[in-house]
Amino acid sequence: METLTRASTCRHASIHVTTTRLTEFIDLTDRLEKLVTDSGVRFGILNVQTLHTTTAVVVNEHEPLLLTDFESLLEAVAPGDCRYRHDDTTVRTVNVTDTERRNGHAHCRALLLPTSACLNVTNGRLLLGRWQRVFFVELDGQREREISVVVFGEAGR
Amino acid sequence: METLTRASTCRHASIHVTTTRLTEFIDLTDRLEKLVTDSGVRFGILNVQTLHTTTAVVVNEHEPLLLTDFESLLEAVAPGDCRYRHDDTTVRTVNVTDTERRNGHAHCRALLLPTSACLNVTNGRLLLGRWQRVFFVELDGQREREISVVVFGEAGR
Amino acid sequence: METLTRASTCRHASIHVTTTRLTEFIDLTDRLEKLVTDSGVRFGILNVQTLHTTTAVVVNEHEPLLLTDFESLLEAVAPGDCRYRHDDTTVRTVNVTDTERRNGHAHCRALLLPTSACLNVTNGRLLLGRWQRVFFVELDGQREREISVVVFGEAGR
Repeated sequence: METLTRASTCRHASIHVTTTRLTEFIDLTDRLEKLVTDSGVRFGILNVQTLHTTTAVVVNEHEPLLLTDFESLLEAVAPGDCRYRHDDTTVRTVNVTDTERRNGHAHCRALLLPTSACLNVTNGRLLLGRWQRVFFVELDGQREREISVVVFGEAGR
Repeated sequence: METLTRASTCRHASIHVTTTRLTEFIDLTDRLEKLVTDSGVRFGILNVQTLHTTTAVVVNEHEPLLLTDFESLLEAVAPGDCRYRHDDTTVRTVNVTDTERRNGHAHCRALLLPTSACLNVTNGRLLLGRWQRVFFVELDGQREREISVVVFGEAGR
Repeated sequence: METLTRASTCRHASIHVTTTRLTEFIDLTDRLEKLVTDSGVRFGILNVQTLHTTTAVVVNEHEPLLLTDFESLLEAVAPGDCRYRHDDTTVRTVNVTDTERRNGHAHCRALLLPTSACLNVTNGRLLLGRWQRVFFVELDGQREREISVVVFGEAGR
């Protein structure tokens, strides 16, 4: 019986989003909460990971003006009109594709933001504070994007 | 027998702290190490997550002068005396509370720092390098704060 | 039978690297992929954690010019020739060693980058997007460094 209550459960899901702006914060919280409920996991973790290198996953407040502050911050840290060697097609030879964009600034912004967020699951729910929301951050839209989610923990009863 | 040694264990705990300064680094390491020992987990992970949007969890050295360098860095990246649209009560309509503070800078600083740290547990102990300490970072104190900790792994013998 | 397929597996490994430059991005992806394959984990997570406070673990594209852009970004955010109180040996008393270096800038850069990356494992493989590679980031080389990796999940068939 003890072994049964301690059985672990691991569920994986993909979230697909279509971004519509150059920089965009997409609130994933409702979808993540549903994935936790559906998983049957009582105690454990949820790991949400973007699969792209000019995007990020962050946790903060969903207040529209604040999201514009975040955009200004990212522009200040890695300005869009600076020169990036990654965008210099006269010298670059690696990973060059037909659909290459000028996006060195987006990679630099992504470097300073997390690729994934590991969050706790308790009592069968995704544990978030009162103001915490989980965002997928597009830094080089518009694009089709994929986010991977693993919910892993003890199933309980 | 093999199944028994592979049984997973997941323990959850909350840590409550009262911050006393506007910016503050609170060393959680001793408390986290005790939680790992108490959990009985031999190999797995510990995920420590703040439940607030103007705070963070970081891993670095506990050297008092270095912590003042970190504070200067955060001030340089998102200055406290800049204008943030989040603080403009003449236009903001979302998530406005009676106890609203001017804290756009604190949210911006939090955006550039992690909400959680996922750390390895090996041989029944929280695995940290010689100089590594885990800090809760207050960016908009003084406040009552809560941190969630999950220790999840194989219990072994 | 159900219990068997749900048995969790947790494997730990250390990766040792010798860095040769002051700032260096070392691609760990192939080694991490092999650790996942060797672990037998089908669904779960991999957590890769550096054990040092002047290093980081990041996920981004492996394009050599982009890595020089990242280096420029880090230099802009926390310049190497600024004054850091951590380096002021006339006042510092904590954690002083015989081999102390001037490395306040490296700690500050590390503060803005992750100590660990928690990534998903699906269908027995480390899940990464087309351009995603996992890097150990040296910010204060040359040094001998150690990285800890935990692969934890369901072994399944």
